[in-house]
Amino acid sequence: MANSRFEYVKGFEKADNLLPETYIVIRIDGKGFHKFTEKHEFAKPNDSRCLELMNKAAEIVVSEFTDIVLAYGDSDEYSFVWCKGTQLYERRESKLVSHVCSLFTSAFVFNWSKFFDIPLRSLPSFDGRAVLYPSFSSLRDYLSWRQADCHINNLYNTTFWALRLQGKMSNREAEERLKGTVSADKHEILFSQFGINYNNEPEMYKKGTIFTRKPADGDDMLSKGTNLSKKQKKKLVIEKLHVDLIADSFWKERPYLETFMNQ
Amino acid sequence: MANSRFEYVKGFEKADNLLPETYIVIRIDGKGFHKFTEKHEFAKPNDSRCLELMNKAAEIVVSEFTDIVLAYGDSDEYSFVWCKGTQLYERRESKLVSHVCSLFTSAFVFNWSKFFDIPLRSLPSFDGRAVLYPSFSSLRDYLSWRQADCHINNLYNTTFWALRLQGKMSNREAEERLKGTVSADKHEILFSQFGINYNNEPEMYKKGTIFTRKPADGDDMLSKGTNLSKKQKKKLVIEKLHVDLIADSFWKERPYLETFMNQ
Amino acid sequence: MANSRFEYVKGFEKADNLLPETYIVIRIDGKGFHKFTEKHEFAKPNDSRCLELMNKAAEIVVSEFTDIVLAYGDSDEYSFVWCKGTQLYERRESKLVSHVCSLFTSAFVFNWSKFFDIPLRSLPSFDGRAVLYPSFSSLRDYLSWRQADCHINNLYNTTFWALRLQGKMSNREAEERLKGTVSADKHEILFSQFGINYNNEPEMYKKGTIFTRKPADGDDMLSKGTNLSKKQKKKLVIEKLHVDLIADSFWKERPYLETFMNQ
Amino acid sequence: MANSRFEYVKGFEKADNLLPETYIVIRIDGKGFHKFTEKHEFAKPNDSRCLELMNKAAEIVVSEFTDIVLAYGDSDEYSFVWCKGTQLYERRESKLVSHVCSLFTSAFVFNWSKFFDIPLRSLPSFDGRAVLYPSFSSLRDYLSWRQADCHINNLYNTTFWALRLQGKMSNREAEERLKGTVSADKHEILFSQFGINYNNEPEMYKKGTIFTRKPADGDDMLSKGTNLSKKQKKKLVIEKLHVDLIADSFWKERPYLETFMNQ
Repeated sequence: MANSRFEYVKGFEKADNLLPETYIVIRIDGKGFHKFTEKHEFAKPNDSRCLELMNKAAEIVVSEFTDIVLAYGDSDEYSFVWCKGTQLYERRESKLVSHVCSLFTSAFVFNWSKFFDIPLRSLPSFDGRAVLYPSFSSLRDYLSWRQADCHINNLYNTTFWALRLQGKMSNREAEERLKGTVSADKHEILFSQFGINYNNEPEMYKKGTIFTRKPADGDDMLSKGTNLSKKQKKKLVIEKLHVDLIADSFWKERPYLETFMNQ
Repeated sequence: MANSRFEYVKGFEKADNLLPETYIVIRIDGKGFHKFTEKHEFAKPNDSRCLELMNKAAEIVVSEFTDIVLAYGDSDEYSFVWCKGTQLYERRESKLVSHVCSLFTSAFVFNWSKFFDIPLRSLPSFDGRAVLYPSFSSLRDYLSWRQADCHINNLYNTTFWALRLQGKMSNREAEERLKGTVSADKHEILFSQFGINYNNEPEMYKKGTIFTRKPADGDDMLSKGTNLSKKQKKKLVIEKLHVDLIADSFWKERPYLETFMNQ
Repeated sequence: MANSRFEYVKGFEKADNLLPETYIVIRIDGKGFHKFTEKHEFAKPNDSRCLELMNKAAEIVVSEFTDIVLAYGDSDEYSFVWCKGTQLYERRESKLVSHVCSLFTSAFVFNWSKFFDIPLRSLPSFDGRAVLYPSFSSLRDYLSWRQADCHINNLYNTTFWALRLQGKMSNREAEERLKGTVSADKHEILFSQFGINYNNEPEMYKKGTIFTRKPADGDDMLSKGTNLSKKQKKKLVIEKLHVDLIADSFWKERPYLETFMNQ
Repeated sequence: MANSRFEYVKGFEKADNLLPETYIVIRIDGKGFHKFTEKHEFAKPNDSRCLELMNKAAEIVVSEFTDIVLAYGDSDEYSFVWCKGTQLYERRESKLVSHVCSLFTSAFVFNWSKFFDIPLRSLPSFDGRAVLYPSFSSLRDYLSWRQADCHINNLYNTTFWALRLQGKMSNREAEERLKGTVSADKHEILFSQFGINYNNEPEMYKKGTIFTRKPADGDDMLSKGTNLSKKQKKKLVIEKLHVDLIADSFWKERPYLETFMNQ
């Protein structure tokens, strides 16, 4: 096509290719979800419909990008981890972040009615960012950080809403009651006051949701230590888990994760 | 809330605040829209349903962010121009780009059924980027670039599809016929061969769509040269146009645009 | 030349081209100059030998880069302002900052013995940074900031060292005496206690030093509003000043500065 | 100190902290050294005075920054490798690059007369850049790249200048003679035509110069796998080498290098 004399303005775009050979994490977060949850009368402390819709949207994102090795989500956020050699969009930060965020949003809105009986009363939206981790151990710490955060928040919220709903406390009273309490105190409140054993709460609430790519049963291609072709990547199976990923055992039982992440 | 020992990983996030006192343009583009248009049997060369849906989504974005002064869109892309003093999200690039892109996507999917009779057969998505322009003249050149591009593409596509649909040419034959032709040649083909006067084509196709914020009738607050409060910004009216913005007259007739952009 | 299999590591370098059409300011600062001044028995509060050596080094930098329009320095720092269209090193930040900083250092060490009777007892060094200003008014404010800083520091230091040297106060006593004083108080201390009229202090101490490029006498090429060729730039004359640049008059009397900066 | 109303311009500075836990390499290169070598009548193909002056300047830089683990230089360039946990200047890129470049320049000019009988006839200067390597293997490949480059250039230059000086060829004739030759051809030319066994050329020319930090004799603190205190780092001894660093043996014989780099 012909060019115009205005073409020079393209020169104001800046290169934003991410450092090679580092793990790219793209995390998306709900914008103004506090208000959004009120408008749509979410169950407290967890609304399983929304969590499953988030999971559905995440699964669609994972399916779309074969270089995503693992995704982790809880509440209104999701993190997507890419294998460190990915060349998608030449590793351009804006393209990666905005496309993931857009596709997630698209899937969230499109699938809303499969999870909710009420129609959307306002538009949900998300923001995103990319963070680079140069080593497998810092990447693991990132994921542990998010899951520890899920645990801390969920224990707090479970106790807070027990005090509010069953204990008939006001917002302020519940906050006061929880001020300065440690983990054991909250377990104790739940158990002695409301007969709730926190350990029996649903795993999805306590641990969040993990998607991984894994070899199909009997297929040991990843243990061979060679890089996977695009075709081979497509044969990987997506698995959904609600388990602890902080302990070493998660990674030892799934050696293909580190192998795939490092390619 | 309590912190975990993994908290240090936050230190890997990088600051991405955009240079102050520059015009921020956020442009979003459809991802893989060629395939998307085929799947949804778009009219050629322009599908007015999709263009109006794009416009609807853009209007929602403009309404949401009161610091957007002007938006310009055609085909599967839209550019949003922010006043140069905007402090939204502390001018953080990822937040701005991803949120705009996400909200646009959300609005696009949510409103699909208002413009199309057929359901979505695949998920639409967009990517986005931010570009900075330090002067009003370079910003005008950016917008002129996009509108000139719209014109060039639309003239080509109009002629191409006339050759294909009415002229019964194959893809390759139409491409061959257009190779090396200049603007006047295409006008001539359209007129002599198909009786189409290109100048009579719909303005939305030829010029794209512009949204601006303008003072309500009789309100001259912007001519006072003082900065608008958030409250005053909300009183501004959003206007939709399909006109030439390359010539000086567009800007001379709307002096409030430059005033607002510069605040 | 032949390439090696290690060549791929070049791909880890990142593009750092600075935004076009913005004023580039490169400021260098002495590293650890407090210790350096003690080792070389600098006069207090100002050592004119060092200031003139700084000026000499700055003049060499200005001479080398014909796109530098103005330089401003005081104490152990210097700022170099480039015309906004400069394409030197494709505006690559690292190249610009490091080369300016290196050449300044080279000139400083090389010319040391022309200004000091004593040999260098330790190696002087500088660090540098680039800052972008998108408008002429923000650039002027940058320069005003540095000159206001020079004034504030010099008034403080002049009073502090009068108290120390003539007033026989200890460091701590002088600091105590100055705590909470405003500008007028310091003028008063200097005048009533030490008979020093601050206004009669050397202009170089109070205002710092400015280098500008200006047309040779009788040459009005810059008023023509057209861009200068490289050849014409070389005909410009470098002028050294110790005057106020905060007031409008400085810029009004030198219209070629804005003209040259904007090309 | 008091602030001025211009202070806001500081807000235009951007954060440039380098990604944590990656190896920082700062490479400096002579600016316009081709001309500089002519002005100072450098010996061809290698001027040992200049190489030793470069080494002297590099040693001063290594001594100054205790987080530099290794430096490699040849011709008019030097690369400095920092341990991956360094927090110097909060890892701010401009500060690191400009200060290293400035100190190197300072040392080069200051020590000139210790290596050259003739005075400086023009000012030497350098530019610099930072490159990040996320893994030890990519860092090793970087260093191998520079040493392979040294070898390729030195073999070419040695042969070229033998043809020029002993073979009495013109520039063009020597270039023609070498066009298309591989390594073995150049060895053969040197040996059969000029009786030069390339393998007997000085190691500094063929391998460049390496500085490393190593434990003092008998001190095994680095093998303990714990991080070194600042005090311990100062006890490390700087070693100068002209050896092959591409082969594994270099690293196997010096296990403390990887240990120190990784802290």
